[in-house]
Amino acid sequence: MRVIMLIFFLSILSVNALWAVEVSDDTQSCLLCHNSVTPGIVADWEKSLHAKAIPMEAQKKTNLERRISAEKIPEGLQQTSVGCAECHTMNPERHKDSFEHNGYQVHIVVTPSDCATCHPTERAQYQQNIMCLAYVNLNDNTVYRTLINSVNGPQTFARMRLSYGEPDDATNFESCFYCHGTEVKVERMRTRETSLGEMDFPLLSGWPNQGVGRLNPDGSKGSCTACHTRHQFSIEMARKPYTCAECHKGPDVPAYKVYQVSKHGNIFSSLGEKWDFNSVPWTVGKDFTAPTCASCHVSLIVTDEGEIVAERSHQMSDRSSWRIFGVIYAHPHPKSPNTSIIRNKAGLPLPTELTGEAVADYLIDEEEQAGRRANMQKICLTCHSYEWVEGHFARLENTIKTTNEMTVTATKILTTAWEKGVARGLPQGANIFDEAIEKRWVEEWLFFANSTRFASAMAGADYGVFANGRWYMSKNLQEMSDWLEFKLKGK
Amino acid sequence: MRVIMLIFFLSILSVNALWAVEVSDDTQSCLLCHNSVTPGIVADWEKSLHAKAIPMEAQKKTNLERRISAEKIPEGLQQTSVGCAECHTMNPERHKDSFEHNGYQVHIVVTPSDCATCHPTERAQYQQNIMCLAYVNLNDNTVYRTLINSVNGPQTFARMRLSYGEPDDATNFESCFYCHGTEVKVERMRTRETSLGEMDFPLLSGWPNQGVGRLNPDGSKGSCTACHTRHQFSIEMARKPYTCAECHKGPDVPAYKVYQVSKHGNIFSSLGEKWDFNSVPWTVGKDFTAPTCASCHVSLIVTDEGEIVAERSHQMSDRSSWRIFGVIYAHPHPKSPNTSIIRNKAGLPLPTELTGEAVADYLIDEEEQAGRRANMQKICLTCHSYEWVEGHFARLENTIKTTNEMTVTATKILTTAWEKGVARGLPQGANIFDEAIEKRWVEEWLFFANSTRFASAMAGADYGVFANGRWYMSKNLQEMSDWLEFKLKGK
Amino acid sequence: MRVIMLIFFLSILSVNALWAVEVSDDTQSCLLCHNSVTPGIVADWEKSLHAKAIPMEAQKKTNLERRISAEKIPEGLQQTSVGCAECHTMNPERHKDSFEHNGYQVHIVVTPSDCATCHPTERAQYQQNIMCLAYVNLNDNTVYRTLINSVNGPQTFARMRLSYGEPDDATNFESCFYCHGTEVKVERMRTRETSLGEMDFPLLSGWPNQGVGRLNPDGSKGSCTACHTRHQFSIEMARKPYTCAECHKGPDVPAYKVYQVSKHGNIFSSLGEKWDFNSVPWTVGKDFTAPTCASCHVSLIVTDEGEIVAERSHQMSDRSSWRIFGVIYAHPHPKSPNTSIIRNKAGLPLPTELTGEAVADYLIDEEEQAGRRANMQKICLTCHSYEWVEGHFARLENTIKTTNEMTVTATKILTTAWEKGVARGLPQGANIFDEAIEKRWVEEWLFFANSTRFASAMAGADYGVFANGRWYMSKNLQEMSDWLEFKLKGK
Repeated sequence: MRVIMLIFFLSILSVNALWAVEVSDDTQSCLLCHNSVTPGIVADWEKSLHAKAIPMEAQKKTNLERRISAEKIPEGLQQTSVGCAECHTMNPERHKDSFEHNGYQVHIVVTPSDCATCHPTERAQYQQNIMCLAYVNLNDNTVYRTLINSVNGPQTFARMRLSYGEPDDATNFESCFYCHGTEVKVERMRTRETSLGEMDFPLLSGWPNQGVGRLNPDGSKGSCTACHTRHQFSIEMARKPYTCAECHKGPDVPAYKVYQVSKHGNIFSSLGEKWDFNSVPWTVGKDFTAPTCASCHVSLIVTDEGEIVAERSHQMSDRSSWRIFGVIYAHPHPKSPNTSIIRNKAGLPLPTELTGEAVADYLIDEEEQAGRRANMQKICLTCHSYEWVEGHFARLENTIKTTNEMTVTATKILTTAWEKGVARGLPQGANIFDEAIEKRWVEEWLFFANSTRFASAMAGADYGVFANGRWYMSKNLQEMSDWLEFKLKGK
Repeated sequence: MRVIMLIFFLSILSVNALWAVEVSDDTQSCLLCHNSVTPGIVADWEKSLHAKAIPMEAQKKTNLERRISAEKIPEGLQQTSVGCAECHTMNPERHKDSFEHNGYQVHIVVTPSDCATCHPTERAQYQQNIMCLAYVNLNDNTVYRTLINSVNGPQTFARMRLSYGEPDDATNFESCFYCHGTEVKVERMRTRETSLGEMDFPLLSGWPNQGVGRLNPDGSKGSCTACHTRHQFSIEMARKPYTCAECHKGPDVPAYKVYQVSKHGNIFSSLGEKWDFNSVPWTVGKDFTAPTCASCHVSLIVTDEGEIVAERSHQMSDRSSWRIFGVIYAHPHPKSPNTSIIRNKAGLPLPTELTGEAVADYLIDEEEQAGRRANMQKICLTCHSYEWVEGHFARLENTIKTTNEMTVTATKILTTAWEKGVARGLPQGANIFDEAIEKRWVEEWLFFANSTRFASAMAGADYGVFANGRWYMSKNLQEMSDWLEFKLKGK
Repeated sequence: MRVIMLIFFLSILSVNALWAVEVSDDTQSCLLCHNSVTPGIVADWEKSLHAKAIPMEAQKKTNLERRISAEKIPEGLQQTSVGCAECHTMNPERHKDSFEHNGYQVHIVVTPSDCATCHPTERAQYQQNIMCLAYVNLNDNTVYRTLINSVNGPQTFARMRLSYGEPDDATNFESCFYCHGTEVKVERMRTRETSLGEMDFPLLSGWPNQGVGRLNPDGSKGSCTACHTRHQFSIEMARKPYTCAECHKGPDVPAYKVYQVSKHGNIFSSLGEKWDFNSVPWTVGKDFTAPTCASCHVSLIVTDEGEIVAERSHQMSDRSSWRIFGVIYAHPHPKSPNTSIIRNKAGLPLPTELTGEAVADYLIDEEEQAGRRANMQKICLTCHSYEWVEGHFARLENTIKTTNEMTVTATKILTTAWEKGVARGLPQGANIFDEAIEKRWVEEWLFFANSTRFASAMAGADYGVFANGRWYMSKNLQEMSDWLEFKLKGK
């Protein structure tokens, strides 16, 4: 009988941690109202590891198993779960969005600096991630600003001509900056009626937002919840490709679409429901039998024998030798995550010349590229032979070269149009993204060459051919050339 | 030992209802043959709640838990499962598709009027749903008919000119009317050989079809199985976004695609396999931690404390203040689900003028809009702060305005083309959808503005930018303008 | 107590086959190193049926349950699991990629000839599959070669003109031939350093590849792992649509996309997690309640009463009466899987004339078409009435006719352009795929007519209308006509 009770008890334990985890008094105060006011997120949080574990225990894990990197966690946070108050009242002095709320100094926007209390290594790595600078890299780049304006700017038609206006903030916030992150600022305090009486709340501009490079009211950059979705902060979710797909699915960066039709993506879709997405470290073959985005770019991967295949990285680019996302051309990864500082020979903030040459001073060199490639290949080699991997990467190198060459051709057609005066661009000191022929040029590299390169990098077949790949690279050039002919006719 | 037996027994019960549910004699007659003749649907039905429960018991549930809304269910239907005969022999006098089949008056097309025997409230609500009129709204609208003809009509090329023919019924039935619904009519009876000898069956036109606004042989409108897929009629399935995706994924109405890349969609894709999709009522946070389409637009949502967040609705539009699906412009929702009755100032059956102004008489007013918006926001507020929700909806209002303005610009280019005589449209009394420039104009609102609005409404990032969003809105205008220039050249 | 032990024991058994399966000495030698060197694939293989069963036992199953078709299996293979050595040292005399590796003659590329040791029927059927000839049909067809060149060929712009170069092998291998298969040849042996010292390995060209029509170093054609993904070779995976999606999702052949929005696809996505994808034979209704790709095109389907609905087929085309993938027009399936032998009246290796007529000598006749259609319909009829099925197929026949007619119209515009000298094609003996107008013509049939036909065949609604369907078929013709007008202007 005792044996059965034991089995029964163990089975319950494995399903749900039954031991009581203490909730701090402050968080209990939060829950008292928010259990009714926002029951959805409270229930969501209750399913999180933050609710089920305490930092002191989490720290005792072995180096490989640890999910928190802090050596020292403040005394007051060690013995209770990580609840509302722990995060939303952290570092109040830094938070311009901190406000008095039922006796507490609460802030709305929990930031990487707050999370760094327990996860400092991850935060430090992320600061080297180009994504952390996604707002800055877009907003502080004069060329990219003109791209934004010619995508989001309202157009009017009068006297047989189109003209652009300035896009409004609301539009920019929900389009480009939705993924890149907004600048979140406190506008003012406002008093409003709530179900619990009159209360004061800060009004934020650039809000809501959870973009990867968000500028936060405490001066920090980034948003951990972009990938570690609040309030469950599930590692399972961050490891599944759907998270990356939020921003990496469009024609400019079709990583998820390519993954879906790759052999890896097929294995994930077909058999992934049997994998263990919560295990730390993540054991190749045992926990999963094909990589997701996280396996190759982020996660700590080990073999069943405990050998480390890949270190956990929140820099992400440290296993990528090329930036295949071509603006305007694919190029070696930038040295600094801040790309707005780059200047090419023409003085433009672009990592390549208009004719395709890399701006070497700002980009990693071949040795660094080789090291990053080798790190990535170490993951591939857990399942594939050396020759297989070698063959795969040789194709990628070739495709980077050939797609860049096609972009050179598109650029030549465009610059001819500028020279002949049938379009207005660099020679005229005009916006280079606003006219039809310029937009076709943008599609050549931003959609078609990018798609082809992602297909090559992740073996996604048709995204390199008919699904926004080489077919369109080829057709687009022919149509640009026809357009030039039509424009010049009778000129 | 007894404890174990009890646990064992309970676990079996929870997996599968063991108590015998009586099958009516009539349905047993059906099953006798159809178990062999159509084993797939019989097995499917056996997995349904219709097969596992009886109406009398279903009626005893509390108001919140009830899945049937009828106060009185006919005596003969109360004690047996809801099987073949119960539905396919219901209301034979109304069914023109009723025929003698082995001693029974059987009909092929089970309709909302039949389902209303047990689900009258849902049927009544659905009659107020614009989807219920989807056939009528398309077929009885002279403008939309010309759109159908210029999409489906066969074209021939002769003497250097293209001309359109009339599309055939089979084409219309499997394209536009596949989703909108067909008119299903009895053509004639036919005798044919079956595995059980010679038999008579009605031949239907417009068949097969399960479109949402189908005209049925009993005079009713709609098809419950469009969403409640026969013969399992699983509420789980109706609540999953794949059901809505059957008709809401294309470039004209990319709701599902937008949802997929939204934070909500990511949570569903990553963690949804752990949710309870069968619970009635549906408890936010406990049963699910992010909304699917049904959560916001249809389902009865409660909190864990039993408070009602949203009433069940089969009208669906009662939480939507705008019809963001712009034909031609986004506009307040129509008052009547029958939009074919609308007439704008120009006498056209369109909810806006060609210049964008709403045809106020036929559309809900601002007060009604505010009420609907508040009902929707009540759902948002179970997880999000008031300020978050407010910020989100302010962006949507702004996007409705700016996308409509871009459609105004596209319309100006088109009307200029008509005025200059390089295209033939309203001034010439010609089809306004059949020429290249007109089709580009259609894409401006039907594809690009719609996509941008859906992305705004559901926070789907790239569908408002590069994935059929603002990038294309902007580029399309430039190309329309170039086209106009080319056409006028040498004219 | 014994009862409990029994339950406990049975539950363990059901989770994981506990009985020891013997691993051959040779495979043990492989595992000794490869457990460390490529732990991912070893763990993957351990999850396979190949690792958990032995051929002798597998042969004892009833005809319906058998997964291996060989009557006789070589003595030495009967008693041990199917491991590394069993496959990678099979038939060394035929394998040009066989090499000495730690005392064994090992080859890299396991081929259909190797798999045929246990699965000869499947291999024989597959040799009749047009997919088995996918490399040959593409590479040995002079017309299709020019298509490849005008998709993958690099373009340069000089003196106001674009010109094409020859595509390189690496590009072709990762684009068209990724799915079609490459020719895998041994280039030379190479010595390299490994973690276990210096070793020799063959260097292969056309590698990596797992395309369906791969030419293998042993002279065989095809790649079983295209669908039966190594090293788990899971039938579950082959039966899920994600496998087919690897190659059948692009705009040229959007089968998976169409399936996703079909009622069948919705049922799979919503409820498929409860299905049994591993059962052989596959019982309709019981194991699954809606078809996947495999159900209709490949799998052995039975009813719960054991009646065979469809025989297992690796020919796949034997239930398809039409080849709806139109190159250039949809046509009856070719008689031989080798389509490169076909010659139309103009002497071109195409299954239709340029004007659409089928090249009857090489294609199946109406009687064969009727038989194939009836075989397919037998599957439909397990869930649908005869009239439903009849109505569905009548629409498909109609759509094949109307889409072919639209292609005739597009072809007329193109040939007019050739005749008028504004494009260079057949009359000029020039490439017919390289110019803008020719690429638009290709899209008419390859993208838009194909999409419309797939939507018709699998009831995928919008893929026959706005999602690359009739909307684009119609718009494309109008734009081709406008282009012709612009080109002729001022000529």
